Amino acid sequence: MKETLQQALEALRDLENRQHALSHAMGMLSLDAATVGPKGAGEGRGQTLGVLSDMYYALIADPKNEAILSALEAGADELDPQARRETELVRRQCRQISRIPQEEYVAYTQLLNQAQEVWEKAKNENDFPAFAPYLEKLVEYNRKFAGYYNPDLPPYDALLNEYEEGMTTEILDAFFARLREKLVPLIARIGEKPAPEDGFLHREYPVELQRKYSDDLMELMGLDRRYCVIGETEHPFTENFNNRDVRITTHYYENDLGSSMYSVIHEGGHALYELDCDSRYNYTAVAGGVSMGIHESQSRFYENIVGRSLPFIKVVLPMAKKRFPDQLQGVDAESFYRAVNRVQPSLIRTEADEMTYCLHIMVRYELEKQLIAGTLAVRDVPQTWNRLYREYLGIEVPDDAHGCLQDSHWSGGAFGYFPSYALGSAYGAQMLAVMEQQLGDVWAEVEKGDLSRITGWLREKIHRHASLYRPGQLFEMACGKFNPDFYVDYLTRKYTDLYQL
Amino acid sequence: MKETLQQALEALRDLENRQHALSHAMGMLSLDAATVGPKGAGEGRGQTLGVLSDMYYALIADPKNEAILSALEAGADELDPQARRETELVRRQCRQISRIPQEEYVAYTQLLNQAQEVWEKAKNENDFPAFAPYLEKLVEYNRKFAGYYNPDLPPYDALLNEYEEGMTTEILDAFFARLREKLVPLIARIGEKPAPEDGFLHREYPVELQRKYSDDLMELMGLDRRYCVIGETEHPFTENFNNRDVRITTHYYENDLGSSMYSVIHEGGHALYELDCDSRYNYTAVAGGVSMGIHESQSRFYENIVGRSLPFIKVVLPMAKKRFPDQLQGVDAESFYRAVNRVQPSLIRTEADEMTYCLHIMVRYELEKQLIAGTLAVRDVPQTWNRLYREYLGIEVPDDAHGCLQDSHWSGGAFGYFPSYALGSAYGAQMLAVMEQQLGDVWAEVEKGDLSRITGWLREKIHRHASLYRPGQLFEMACGKFNPDFYVDYLTRKYTDLYQL
Repeated sequence: MKETLQQALEALRDLENRQHALSHAMGMLSLDAATVGPKGAGEGRGQTLGVLSDMYYALIADPKNEAILSALEAGADELDPQARRETELVRRQCRQISRIPQEEYVAYTQLLNQAQEVWEKAKNENDFPAFAPYLEKLVEYNRKFAGYYNPDLPPYDALLNEYEEGMTTEILDAFFARLREKLVPLIARIGEKPAPEDGFLHREYPVELQRKYSDDLMELMGLDRRYCVIGETEHPFTENFNNRDVRITTHYYENDLGSSMYSVIHEGGHALYELDCDSRYNYTAVAGGVSMGIHESQSRFYENIVGRSLPFIKVVLPMAKKRFPDQLQGVDAESFYRAVNRVQPSLIRTEADEMTYCLHIMVRYELEKQLIAGTLAVRDVPQTWNRLYREYLGIEVPDDAHGCLQDSHWSGGAFGYFPSYALGSAYGAQMLAVMEQQLGDVWAEVEKGDLSRITGWLREKIHRHASLYRPGQLFEMACGKFNPDFYVDYLTRKYTDLYQL
Repeated sequence: MKETLQQALEALRDLENRQHALSHAMGMLSLDAATVGPKGAGEGRGQTLGVLSDMYYALIADPKNEAILSALEAGADELDPQARRETELVRRQCRQISRIPQEEYVAYTQLLNQAQEVWEKAKNENDFPAFAPYLEKLVEYNRKFAGYYNPDLPPYDALLNEYEEGMTTEILDAFFARLREKLVPLIARIGEKPAPEDGFLHREYPVELQRKYSDDLMELMGLDRRYCVIGETEHPFTENFNNRDVRITTHYYENDLGSSMYSVIHEGGHALYELDCDSRYNYTAVAGGVSMGIHESQSRFYENIVGRSLPFIKVVLPMAKKRFPDQLQGVDAESFYRAVNRVQPSLIRTEADEMTYCLHIMVRYELEKQLIAGTLAVRDVPQTWNRLYREYLGIEVPDDAHGCLQDSHWSGGAFGYFPSYALGSAYGAQMLAVMEQQLGDVWAEVEKGDLSRITGWLREKIHRHASLYRPGQLFEMACGKFNPDFYVDYLTRKYTDLYQL
């Protein structure tokens, strides 16, 4: 490699290290805020986050980057795949951030701060009109930003690309149409069957014992506690700093065993992905999971495909019984399996079962598409939301707090994020099919508490590559062309059997 | 104020804000490491701390600061006291840090990160030789840094100045000589008396209940939980980010009620100081407690002068009995008071009683003086340590884990810090004398659980000023000239009565 190219690469890595350090610091402050930090410490944290994000902006917007990136792009043929991808990813960030005029960026950041508070209040007070003017501005900014991100794409596609490189409305329209066509009738047939008994999941499960049960679950999943710890928060999430420092969080409800149990398994899936990323990518732009869709494929794979399978229940129920002998007395694996797979169209996305979950996403997808296209006015969001819940899920939305105000995504400026959740589920089902094709039966091992071949396959095909490949490319390398039928078939098979349809 | 002066002040405050943000981030990472973070995450944290401290260094070492500081110094007469002190403190940092070559500063930060892990392991495995090469490097760096900090002072004095502006070996030699002269005979006389019964403090105290008891103690101290939370760690400490974000930590031992109880009260004293600092100083160089000595005066004031007083025991014992009715059955205030004030020369500083505590400090003071002077080799630390414990405390040190490996200060690079603990105790005794002179009897209120007049006096005289005054000046404004006799008298009176000498 030429000396100048080598120097450019070193300069790029220095930039990436600084980006990483600031992200690590900001992530740490946010993690602390959401877990153990004092509740009244917002002002000081905001002050520090403001300064750090300014520093981050200055780093990316530094005019010196242009020369570095141009040199690397000119010498791309001489770079190894990692360095090429680092160049591509940093270029992408620089282009996006430098296309947003700084005053718009600052104004938008301030808007986000306000919007979060206004949304929280509006949700608590069931007052959509209070949030509407902010949502309008957020939509406006995002339509404008979409043009900055990629002026060659339709605005919503440009936003989708932020969360899932290469994703398009065309792919998603076909995907969701297929799901709607197949799942809506299936859910209707399930609705005619008697609901499985799940009262035993809502007995009293002391938090102190649930904490110990979380440890059991993490051990069963093979999460290495030297590098991965669990914290407690209002809305569970995973935060990763590098492949040896990953945090999962959960929320314990004394009268709900399933809630934290499946949070732990879901976040544990995210964590396995991050922990399995190859160390060589640490502290660079290639570090960590590649997209929200692929990330959700891992979390939902462990949560639903593994965690809600009968073989897994057979191994986890005895563990649960050890912690909760009285609460689970007389409950057998089959009953537990049915209870944690109970299908019930409901109002709140985060509490939805595996089957109806995608319908919640479809509602949001339809609304976002129209909002960003400018064909839906913000004031009409509630009635459209409610109409779609009626159409897709067959239920009436009683108020906006349980309707269009329920999620924090829009107040956080995340338009185009929701589809990742559904995509992730579909990716996972296709991964399972390919995995079974290649490995044969994996469920006998699961029943013995051994997830190592499953995790090994995912590590080999997905995890270890971190962000080296674009998400679509990574998925195709592992599983061939994306085909939503795998997901539809998986759900149909599972629930036909479960509900004896 | 002239426009240029105003501009210089704004530039200074921008620098201070950035310093604050980076310190906040680094403090957060360290706090996380010591409390909830994964144990194996040292590498990535080190990487980030390396970059952030690099940034911090660049900020302070920026040649542009010279013009800003010079302008402010030239216009000092027009500045308010806060701006003058900000200028003085930032100048001090710039002078010190710009004298440390950047690569040494970065290497030292990385060394600290490694040393902490190595020390922990060495302590657990009672393996001083494993830690010795790190200690050697740490001593070396600190000797060198002392010269950078203040080449006009003897090296150890320059280090002392880091923790207690204006402190000298001369003052400390006299102070410790006075203590030794008075306390060693007193301790000998106590040793002839029967030891008070304290077995009840070592019954089984479940950690879960001790956590609730910590909440009681924090409430009693008037610590506002919106801005102050408690975490768990190996070696209790307090971390503060601003006057609305303070963290205390403790360590629970199932068979020791007093250990965590007095950690909470001690760290709570630090926290009150930080929480009471005036908000106007937040995010500037004047924010937070002014020195380690003044800080320890507050923590040890609450821990010993208040927390180990009979009136306080009378109010806290019923609280403890509510949490631990069986363990404390039949224990009365007088017995509890005697138990928590039992004088017993012992091996571990942090478990030492109020009376012998200073002797532990003297050992460290002697060793540090010689290490930094270069008259003691690191390999001779254990035998010198053990000899001094024999001389001062009359006890044999069985191994280095209970000897020279017990404290985290040296692995954290803190040479010259220990004397603050003893100074703090002495400051506190003088504060009590002045407070009683001014307020009259405060103990009747303490007996009713009301610490508000005591805390109010400390807030008014000490806390609210943050770092506006130099520590010596602040102390003199509150209490007149420092005189160790107040401390000697306080201890003599308390223990003569307690042991009926």
